[in-house]
Amino acid sequence: MLINGPNLNLIGNRDPSIYGKKTLIDIENACIKRANSLNYDIECVQSNHEGQLIDWIHTTKHAGIVINAGAYTHTSIAIPDALVSVELPVVEVHLSNIHNRESFRHISYISKISIGMICGFGAIGYELAIEALIHYIDNLHK
Amino acid sequence: MLINGPNLNLIGNRDPSIYGKKTLIDIENACIKRANSLNYDIECVQSNHEGQLIDWIHTTKHAGIVINAGAYTHTSIAIPDALVSVELPVVEVHLSNIHNRESFRHISYISKISIGMICGFGAIGYELAIEALIHYIDNLHK
Amino acid sequence: MLINGPNLNLIGNRDPSIYGKKTLIDIENACIKRANSLNYDIECVQSNHEGQLIDWIHTTKHAGIVINAGAYTHTSIAIPDALVSVELPVVEVHLSNIHNRESFRHISYISKISIGMICGFGAIGYELAIEALIHYIDNLHK
Amino acid sequence: MLINGPNLNLIGNRDPSIYGKKTLIDIENACIKRANSLNYDIECVQSNHEGQLIDWIHTTKHAGIVINAGAYTHTSIAIPDALVSVELPVVEVHLSNIHNRESFRHISYISKISIGMICGFGAIGYELAIEALIHYIDNLHK
Amino acid sequence: MLINGPNLNLIGNRDPSIYGKKTLIDIENACIKRANSLNYDIECVQSNHEGQLIDWIHTTKHAGIVINAGAYTHTSIAIPDALVSVELPVVEVHLSNIHNRESFRHISYISKISIGMICGFGAIGYELAIEALIHYIDNLHK
Amino acid sequence: MLINGPNLNLIGNRDPSIYGKKTLIDIENACIKRANSLNYDIECVQSNHEGQLIDWIHTTKHAGIVINAGAYTHTSIAIPDALVSVELPVVEVHLSNIHNRESFRHISYISKISIGMICGFGAIGYELAIEALIHYIDNLHK
Amino acid sequence: MLINGPNLNLIGNRDPSIYGKKTLIDIENACIKRANSLNYDIECVQSNHEGQLIDWIHTTKHAGIVINAGAYTHTSIAIPDALVSVELPVVEVHLSNIHNRESFRHISYISKISIGMICGFGAIGYELAIEALIHYIDNLHK
Amino acid sequence: MLINGPNLNLIGNRDPSIYGKKTLIDIENACIKRANSLNYDIECVQSNHEGQLIDWIHTTKHAGIVINAGAYTHTSIAIPDALVSVELPVVEVHLSNIHNRESFRHISYISKISIGMICGFGAIGYELAIEALIHYIDNLHK
Amino acid sequence: MLINGPNLNLIGNRDPSIYGKKTLIDIENACIKRANSLNYDIECVQSNHEGQLIDWIHTTKHAGIVINAGAYTHTSIAIPDALVSVELPVVEVHLSNIHNRESFRHISYISKISIGMICGFGAIGYELAIEALIHYIDNLHK
Amino acid sequence: MLINGPNLNLIGNRDPSIYGKKTLIDIENACIKRANSLNYDIECVQSNHEGQLIDWIHTTKHAGIVINAGAYTHTSIAIPDALVSVELPVVEVHLSNIHNRESFRHISYISKISIGMICGFGAIGYELAIEALIHYIDNLHK
Amino acid sequence: MLINGPNLNLIGNRDPSIYGKKTLIDIENACIKRANSLNYDIECVQSNHEGQLIDWIHTTKHAGIVINAGAYTHTSIAIPDALVSVELPVVEVHLSNIHNRESFRHISYISKISIGMICGFGAIGYELAIEALIHYIDNLHK
Amino acid sequence: MLINGPNLNLIGNRDPSIYGKKTLIDIENACIKRANSLNYDIECVQSNHEGQLIDWIHTTKHAGIVINAGAYTHTSIAIPDALVSVELPVVEVHLSNIHNRESFRHISYISKISIGMICGFGAIGYELAIEALIHYIDNLHK
Repeated sequence: MLINGPNLNLIGNRDPSIYGKKTLIDIENACIKRANSLNYDIECVQSNHEGQLIDWIHTTKHAGIVINAGAYTHTSIAIPDALVSVELPVVEVHLSNIHNRESFRHISYISKISIGMICGFGAIGYELAIEALIHYIDNLHK
Repeated sequence: MLINGPNLNLIGNRDPSIYGKKTLIDIENACIKRANSLNYDIECVQSNHEGQLIDWIHTTKHAGIVINAGAYTHTSIAIPDALVSVELPVVEVHLSNIHNRESFRHISYISKISIGMICGFGAIGYELAIEALIHYIDNLHK
Repeated sequence: MLINGPNLNLIGNRDPSIYGKKTLIDIENACIKRANSLNYDIECVQSNHEGQLIDWIHTTKHAGIVINAGAYTHTSIAIPDALVSVELPVVEVHLSNIHNRESFRHISYISKISIGMICGFGAIGYELAIEALIHYIDNLHK
Repeated sequence: MLINGPNLNLIGNRDPSIYGKKTLIDIENACIKRANSLNYDIECVQSNHEGQLIDWIHTTKHAGIVINAGAYTHTSIAIPDALVSVELPVVEVHLSNIHNRESFRHISYISKISIGMICGFGAIGYELAIEALIHYIDNLHK
Repeated sequence: MLINGPNLNLIGNRDPSIYGKKTLIDIENACIKRANSLNYDIECVQSNHEGQLIDWIHTTKHAGIVINAGAYTHTSIAIPDALVSVELPVVEVHLSNIHNRESFRHISYISKISIGMICGFGAIGYELAIEALIHYIDNLHK
Repeated sequence: MLINGPNLNLIGNRDPSIYGKKTLIDIENACIKRANSLNYDIECVQSNHEGQLIDWIHTTKHAGIVINAGAYTHTSIAIPDALVSVELPVVEVHLSNIHNRESFRHISYISKISIGMICGFGAIGYELAIEALIHYIDNLHK
Repeated sequence: MLINGPNLNLIGNRDPSIYGKKTLIDIENACIKRANSLNYDIECVQSNHEGQLIDWIHTTKHAGIVINAGAYTHTSIAIPDALVSVELPVVEVHLSNIHNRESFRHISYISKISIGMICGFGAIGYELAIEALIHYIDNLHK
Repeated sequence: MLINGPNLNLIGNRDPSIYGKKTLIDIENACIKRANSLNYDIECVQSNHEGQLIDWIHTTKHAGIVINAGAYTHTSIAIPDALVSVELPVVEVHLSNIHNRESFRHISYISKISIGMICGFGAIGYELAIEALIHYIDNLHK
Repeated sequence: MLINGPNLNLIGNRDPSIYGKKTLIDIENACIKRANSLNYDIECVQSNHEGQLIDWIHTTKHAGIVINAGAYTHTSIAIPDALVSVELPVVEVHLSNIHNRESFRHISYISKISIGMICGFGAIGYELAIEALIHYIDNLHK
Repeated sequence: MLINGPNLNLIGNRDPSIYGKKTLIDIENACIKRANSLNYDIECVQSNHEGQLIDWIHTTKHAGIVINAGAYTHTSIAIPDALVSVELPVVEVHLSNIHNRESFRHISYISKISIGMICGFGAIGYELAIEALIHYIDNLHK
Repeated sequence: MLINGPNLNLIGNRDPSIYGKKTLIDIENACIKRANSLNYDIECVQSNHEGQLIDWIHTTKHAGIVINAGAYTHTSIAIPDALVSVELPVVEVHLSNIHNRESFRHISYISKISIGMICGFGAIGYELAIEALIHYIDNLHK
Repeated sequence: MLINGPNLNLIGNRDPSIYGKKTLIDIENACIKRANSLNYDIECVQSNHEGQLIDWIHTTKHAGIVINAGAYTHTSIAIPDALVSVELPVVEVHLSNIHNRESFRHISYISKISIGMICGFGAIGYELAIEALIHYIDNLHK
């Protein structure tokens, strides 16, 4: 499952010097393609509502989660709590390199509970995150 | 009124070594029973949405509130502002002892405006919180 | 566009020694009147849901935004991110002087991206904010 | 065992707007009654001497400890070390809500090693603490 | 009374991208005009000397003070102490939005004792501050 | 009542370059003499035990307290709590100027609840403290 | 020499619940009287200008300095540097107990270089400071 | 160019629960293979000497750098300075998720100057970093 | 003299994985033996009372002190003040390595005034501390 | 222009172990000589008044400024604001090495806006600062 | 194995009031002698290069390590990482008492992973460290 | 002796807007010329290896050291320890003004032990540093 958080519905419009020109649909399609090539299906959702993201996490049927929680990455403890409660592997992705932006973007509560993070590579980062998650899940089953 | 915040719909499933095995329904029923035995009715609600919790606080008709705001305890200022605005006595409850978990769980904005806090006792803590609130309300009326 | 955040639906009821006696409707009407006298229309919305506020910001058709994000001022990074993404001038307003209340109200993420802030003057502050925004927009077009 | 720390011998005299009007004897009697109704005996002690509190903890024969260490809560590491050394379940209780008093009262070294905390409810909080401890001990034996 | 602090004698010359092109005389004249239209007189003074600003505050005969203390906003405790000692309503104004400049400009000792603050709107902010102060004084007399 | 805390039994012996050459008895006698000349009696006690100091505070029959709590000044919250609980005026005295010694001596919990502090003047500081306290008590009775 | 800093010209007018009712002239006269009774002359000056205070310190002919630098106590490093440069004994005095007011009043740069501090006793504190300084000077000459 | 820092010569031996079982040679071979499949050559070096790493960075002839600086990530400013001085794109990689280990591993000076970071995925993370870098270089040339 | 502080009477019982299995008597005997072999006598005392430890320090007749102040290491300033006042060489010892336990155990006020510290070696550390102290005293006499 | 701030009129008298034996006149003469040898004139001023220093900066006709703002270096934001407003190159000089004195002298607001700093070399540092400034101005004109 | 870090090749020359008069060779010989008397061989190395120290740690054949990493104690994370990677018991030793020197010497990354620390005793501390390590190794084999 | 640290071999190539266009050789030649004109010889060395810099410091035969330790200025304690151990006067130089770059460049451990610092003037700063050092050495010999 690929979950995108607040304001990510606008990417491609939003400052392209930071986030690149691809829209969310472009990114989701690239992820689906990469997942399929690795024999997995993915479902893509986006919301600006913290509660909605939590509801989706609770009810997912998938084997793992790739999440870009947007600004909620830095302010939400409820989302990582939700991720922990469903006991699924989580990969965190960000379009920009959060470590060299404002200091309040350096903290990620999700990082405390995720397998790993990929950030700074724009749209391609999502594809790499999908591959990293699938690689992790495949190894669990070996 | 008993209000439960994000991820508390899952308790009983979630790591039982921390939160115990009782489900939210079990806890709500125990609270209703304890309240009835003290001649009070209670209403129980739960949501993962911060805004929904605020809406319920604004429109409650009850004489007091027992709240476990879950992770919003540590990140929301809007919820305690809502609690203050309705001018009702508030008792804060937590399943786990928030003081010996991660440091970001040591801060509770709700504690600044509540009568008191009960934490660490699992499901029984809710019943004690109901009794504490009713004891407080009864004393106000004396 | 005038956007009000959590708990501001209750003003006029809530502690009048801090926020004054005018209700949100009173304030909105005064703002509409002031805007009209300066040849602008405004639309007024209020929600207790962070996600709803973001959705409205994304879809506004107006030339600028006056916002009192209430307690989300201090906890939300997603709202200022949304405001940046729509590339409109933003004026921040607060009923009370946030600088001499609790220290957690001293931080405003919105201030990082707004033109300016007006705080502490109660209802009249909204009218001044409308005037400041219109003055700014008029100067852009010169 | 119920252990009270410094200055708690004066409660009932001391500022009643914060601590209520019941004296320590009143509280101890209520606790004994509640414990008896749950088929337990308790012993009640109080001292202003940190060392004396430690000596009592070392030599207790009881199955658990309810403790209000008063101001030593915030300054003593030796008392929680003593509590750990006897390997008994500990419940922490405070008359006032320590979370909305001076910031130096927000830290409790005892919380790091206790099952849980009850604070802010005055005298009734002690009774709830007794019940919480007995509930915990009873569950251990099941 | 309108009081301007250090370096504000140079505005209009100083970096116009931050402070705009109007000179101090332009601003003072606009303030006098706005005050007159609301049936008040104002007196305008400026000094680079902290002690001179304090002397003026001590001896003012006016019903209220609008002050832009410039850099003394962030370093002077003596100026707000002087403002408190004369027991007059104070409105704080800044040309730039001090919240998104260097962190040492985020602290305003004057904010602790003022009615409110207006910042970021350049010259028009002074006029709004005059209106806010007069509105406040008028309401006191009702 | 004059209360001296830990290690003050040794003054006169201890590093005279910091604390002067007078012994505790010398100081107590000078205080008694000064108090008598102002028509008051005083009682002088010293202990190295925090609990003993608290016991004495609880049971004092005097109209006020001059206290040098020694190192407990910086580590004890129980002593100022005891001083508050007996509702007597308190004057704090120190032989050395605690503000220009190690940083951990800059914090005094007693200062939060005392009328005032005299420090740095060695033995004569005690006499001045006695005079300050008596002056305060005399004014209360006027 | 007795030096008073900013806003102290207004004492007696300013909030009497904190600073008492005596005016600066009253205090200066009491100090002159106390100094005379101990066979010393003193000169009293006051200014709201930091630079003026420094100029006076540089040119004093007296054997020691009692100073209440008012708000400059907490913000000025130049004043204590001036005091050090003239190599005279300095006693610091404050009308209020600076340790239990706002935290920015807890720091005194003057304390780093003074013999000692007397604070919290209102007008009488000045007299005690004069006595402390004279006692110190007399002992130097023995 | 693939640069590995201190202790990474031992991976595969070192605690496999954190770093996985692959040796450095295994990882380097996988990277070469992935690079070749994308039509690039890479050179792999490792050293425990900070100065050696800097020397290699200064003299590289490659179009970009993938670096895992090991513990120097958190303590070296000279390495990111060297990376900046050669004006090549840099991708940072870590075997473990540095954000949920000790707090001194949360700071990466290299992140301030890199395109992005991949961490937490063990050996596969290196391959993804190679792909991310090549993707970035390819886009530059378009 | 060998001084042991709070809870050290229980060692051997307390968590042996941290503190080892030897009792306090075992350790004291080993110290006496090692001291005798180096031609010194030692006296061993233990108390849970901070004041008692200070009283013993004041009245010791020995040529030096080995001290494990237990939890008072981290909270007591009065004990190191007492150690300084008797002007004897002090060696600090801890059973566990205090540097890799909770952060509040990283601070030792005694370290500021001791010759040196030995920690982490369990019972043998006491013997080494005795040898270090005797070595130091012997060198003083040379 | 060479500007000296508070207490620098006294150098040569003030503690020579820190500041050397040359008086301000000696230093100013050496600077004039060095400037003349490089074909520049300089004007030298000194004041203990922050406002006076600002006034001089505003009205200077010179091509650059060498400033030792003394203690105002660490407390004044108004002086660097003034320096910025005149858009002249600024060189900062200090007699002593401010980096190894008290920590409150480590912060220089002037450094944020100056070309560079020379400190620790006593009187010769002024001459080097003159040379550095002239070198900078000469290069601008090339 | 005995490993000494930067600048320790100079001891005996370097300020003897802090480090004593023995040279590194003297210390190494005393250690060899003490080790031999306990039936162990040791190898002694010293380098000023962080990378060299790591290389030696990686390739040691000994059963344990005594290390004085000198200034690298406080700045190197790579050295303790190396020590962990070889899974040998480590004893940390320092000539001076690092706890009462500059605050940047209070942090030791090596302490996080060592058995224990001995500091402040000069050359004899090395011998005690050897004994502590051998005692530890001997107990492992029992 | 002139010592340059990491990355300084590249200056002239590296971002010229910060560091200027002169190469290290240019700078070294200018220093030799200036030293010769003042009747001194200097030797110039550069390394990217912290250990190499320390080795050179240990074995220098010169009367003083001018050092630009580059990024090691902010991270190395071993280098200033080495400088102290050889008991030579040290002058610190930096090409850029380290006080207005990233905050991690504001701390210089070398400043704690150097005579003084010159920073921000580019290549000419080295020459001034040579002159400052020679001036210092000449004065020692007078």
